[in-house]
Amino acid sequence: MSEKEKFVEDIADQEDDFSAWYNQVVRKAELADYAPVRGCMIIRPYGYALWENMQARLDQRFKETDVMNAYFPLLIPRSFLEKEAEHVEGFAPELAWVTRGGGEELEEPLAIRPTSETIIGHSYAKWIQSYRDLPLLINQWNNVMRWEKRTTLFLRTAEFLWQEGHTAHRTLEEAEERTLMMLEVYRDFAENEAAIPVIAGRKSENEKFAGALRTYSIEALMGDGKALQSATSHNLGHNFAKGFDVQFLDSDGERKYCATTSWGLSTRMIGGIIMVHGDKSGLILPPRLAPYQVVIVPIWRKDQDRSTVFEAVERLRKMLKGKVRVKVDDSDNTPGWKFNEWEMRGVPVRLEIGPRDVQNNNVVLVNRMDRSKEVVSIDALEARLPEKLEEIQKALFQRALDYREQNTHYTEDYEEFKQIIAEKRGFVRVKWAEDSAAEQAVKEETKATIRVIPFDQPEGGVQGKCIYTGKPATCEAIFARAY
Amino acid sequence: MSEKEKFVEDIADQEDDFSAWYNQVVRKAELADYAPVRGCMIIRPYGYALWENMQARLDQRFKETDVMNAYFPLLIPRSFLEKEAEHVEGFAPELAWVTRGGGEELEEPLAIRPTSETIIGHSYAKWIQSYRDLPLLINQWNNVMRWEKRTTLFLRTAEFLWQEGHTAHRTLEEAEERTLMMLEVYRDFAENEAAIPVIAGRKSENEKFAGALRTYSIEALMGDGKALQSATSHNLGHNFAKGFDVQFLDSDGERKYCATTSWGLSTRMIGGIIMVHGDKSGLILPPRLAPYQVVIVPIWRKDQDRSTVFEAVERLRKMLKGKVRVKVDDSDNTPGWKFNEWEMRGVPVRLEIGPRDVQNNNVVLVNRMDRSKEVVSIDALEARLPEKLEEIQKALFQRALDYREQNTHYTEDYEEFKQIIAEKRGFVRVKWAEDSAAEQAVKEETKATIRVIPFDQPEGGVQGKCIYTGKPATCEAIFARAY
Ligand SMILES: [Zn+2]
Ligand SMILES: [Zn+2]
Repeated sequence: MSEKEKFVEDIADQEDDFSAWYNQVVRKAELADYAPVRGCMIIRPYGYALWENMQARLDQRFKETDVMNAYFPLLIPRSFLEKEAEHVEGFAPELAWVTRGGGEELEEPLAIRPTSETIIGHSYAKWIQSYRDLPLLINQWNNVMRWEKRTTLFLRTAEFLWQEGHTAHRTLEEAEERTLMMLEVYRDFAENEAAIPVIAGRKSENEKFAGALRTYSIEALMGDGKALQSATSHNLGHNFAKGFDVQFLDSDGERKYCATTSWGLSTRMIGGIIMVHGDKSGLILPPRLAPYQVVIVPIWRKDQDRSTVFEAVERLRKMLKGKVRVKVDDSDNTPGWKFNEWEMRGVPVRLEIGPRDVQNNNVVLVNRMDRSKEVVSIDALEARLPEKLEEIQKALFQRALDYREQNTHYTEDYEEFKQIIAEKRGFVRVKWAEDSAAEQAVKEETKATIRVIPFDQPEGGVQGKCIYTGKPATCEAIFARAY
Repeated sequence: MSEKEKFVEDIADQEDDFSAWYNQVVRKAELADYAPVRGCMIIRPYGYALWENMQARLDQRFKETDVMNAYFPLLIPRSFLEKEAEHVEGFAPELAWVTRGGGEELEEPLAIRPTSETIIGHSYAKWIQSYRDLPLLINQWNNVMRWEKRTTLFLRTAEFLWQEGHTAHRTLEEAEERTLMMLEVYRDFAENEAAIPVIAGRKSENEKFAGALRTYSIEALMGDGKALQSATSHNLGHNFAKGFDVQFLDSDGERKYCATTSWGLSTRMIGGIIMVHGDKSGLILPPRLAPYQVVIVPIWRKDQDRSTVFEAVERLRKMLKGKVRVKVDDSDNTPGWKFNEWEMRGVPVRLEIGPRDVQNNNVVLVNRMDRSKEVVSIDALEARLPEKLEEIQKALFQRALDYREQNTHYTEDYEEFKQIIAEKRGFVRVKWAEDSAAEQAVKEETKATIRVIPFDQPEGGVQGKCIYTGKPATCEAIFARAY
């Protein structure tokens, strides 16, 4: 058995056990590790470098829409959480409580923030006086905590990192506009940076955020046919403004409640990247977000070749510095080991260079997606590499889109629906009459939930009957089992 | 009374009540706000933008020394903190405890991290096997919590933001080298980005980090003559490696303990920037870190002039975009109000532009440090502004350095020492025989502590007697009252 086979054999087969495959890839690629605290994770340098690239691309987009960053406290007084009834009900089971500080029992327990609508509402009430103070557009990058029973690295952990944007507006219309604007930022980020095709739309009543008027989301289909909610954007209407008395004096001299929004994307998205693009050899990272876009592997056998190859590698490194993100693997491991390791870690392009390549002024460029090889002259590399990375970026998106289309089904028959969910999974698009009890019933019978009511609805409205209740359909909805 | 005088009158006089001045500047400049949770703060967008610039400059420096970022959990099991005896003793009084999560009492209480040596030690023990895994160089940007009794925005709050670097090495010498390397990064950052002159050196035994072998720090002198510890770098020796069993197999086949370091700089540094550079009109931000380096204030009286001026301002904005960080104040406030507001918020350069300036193709450039004015042709502005910002950056540093030199005293007489500390404050440099009890006695008698034992010691060693004990001096030490 070759070294390569042996290394790969170490990870589970995607088709046999997707979740084992996922966990092994996360660990072997050194993205993250379980923490010694139940349900918490350690994001290792390689995983965090990916997150930093995601942050930079997303943060830039936020700032282009005039959002500024800020920082609000970690701890939230119990009384704050209780001011919005649906909100506290939604989060209560998942809260972690600080009850002692500085050697004393606290008079009022403090929750570690599960999200910050309440404490931010309190500040906005102080900061906003007049319509001139609006809109107020703030985001924060922070850690939050939700005490989950079952946890999976990145997908569901007690503590996770995210950004939460919070805006306040003069009118409900303006809040709705901002809610949709940020959803579009997420869609653009997911599709163009993470190379993940998503379906954008509205959440059902059952799935919306605790305290929101309306929740929108982008939903992606993972490699095992399950859905992942990849980001959400909430129109909170006047709900939190009323709870925290966020009012402003309008130009007509009247005091009015602000309309507020919130929207977030978390380290969960890293899980999406893994599950959408990964293959049997491990991770495949979209070039725009990859910590290393290119890994250079020097190859030599005879000692006299070593210095020739290393000199060439050093020239390459300098040539590419600042143009693409390059890792040179000059460790003592064998080339075969290095190939496997950097395939596992999902580096989109590998450059192999041996003594003959140096002689011919060439490198061998290997595409992580299909291991296809291309001999490139060193003189052409500076131009070819960025082009190649863009090709891979696009090909990853297209492959994921093809997969999603092949795994999106349509049916008008509930028996067939159940069969698809049980056997094929994927997205199932159906006619639906919005009804919480019916949705709950479908969930109990099939474990599938409405992931999203897509913006993309039939022209002229939906005709026909709800797949479950038989009532006149009000929309088409996408069901799936979800993470 | 003019509008200007009225606005300025709102803040306390630095000489009368420095701490009232400080608090008012923090609030009025909208840097930060107290949170509804005792001792916690909200960093407002303007303060956070400053922090983001600090982060970017510092993070770049870390990465140039091969440090990578990661993320470790917020919560630390009690048993972890107890593994290093001095460490737990040092931090125990300031801990906040999570005792309930997910609706249940926890079996073991979890502390919100006051710093992360312990939980990182636990991970390093798992990740490090061989000398080939060393050095391990990781940093994290995060929130930490220390339940302080008395709090001041930025300077001392229950929760604060910082970075904490943690490295593991093969030898004690290599750890010492890294400890000093990071102190030098901080010195360079403080002096060249924040324009704050600092004294680098070693901490006394009394002032070192709980669990460290040696602590180094950079110390700055604030506008009221009190010292601020601006960053610290700790050589932890084998202390934490032994507590957490961080061992490696060396090339000689022996298992050995790693030598570790940790080093941090926090949002406290923002307090330093305020207190070193600020004046009676408010904040003065060093250009390299200022969220806005330039504010443009359009000036017009007649309506017909308005559009002329605004068109010119728009041209300026476009011309400067991406070259300097510009804010255009196109609000309805009067020019006088705007001048005061942006002086309060410390923008280094103001550009005034009125109808006559437009006609003459000029702007008036005003330096925040001394309100000196300079008429600059619009054509020359793109070249002049970066130059001017650099001049201000250097002038701020020089002014702070002059102030520090004027307020650094030397004495060999303890009575004079007490008088200086009580009346003039500042840094007091004395001959010292290292002795914890003597240091404690001086602290009780004068409230002054050894801020740092500077690297810069007399050539050929210190001659003479300790100012307090009369024993042969072992070093020169710098005492001050401190924040
Ligand atoms: Zn089908
Ligand atoms: Zn003096």
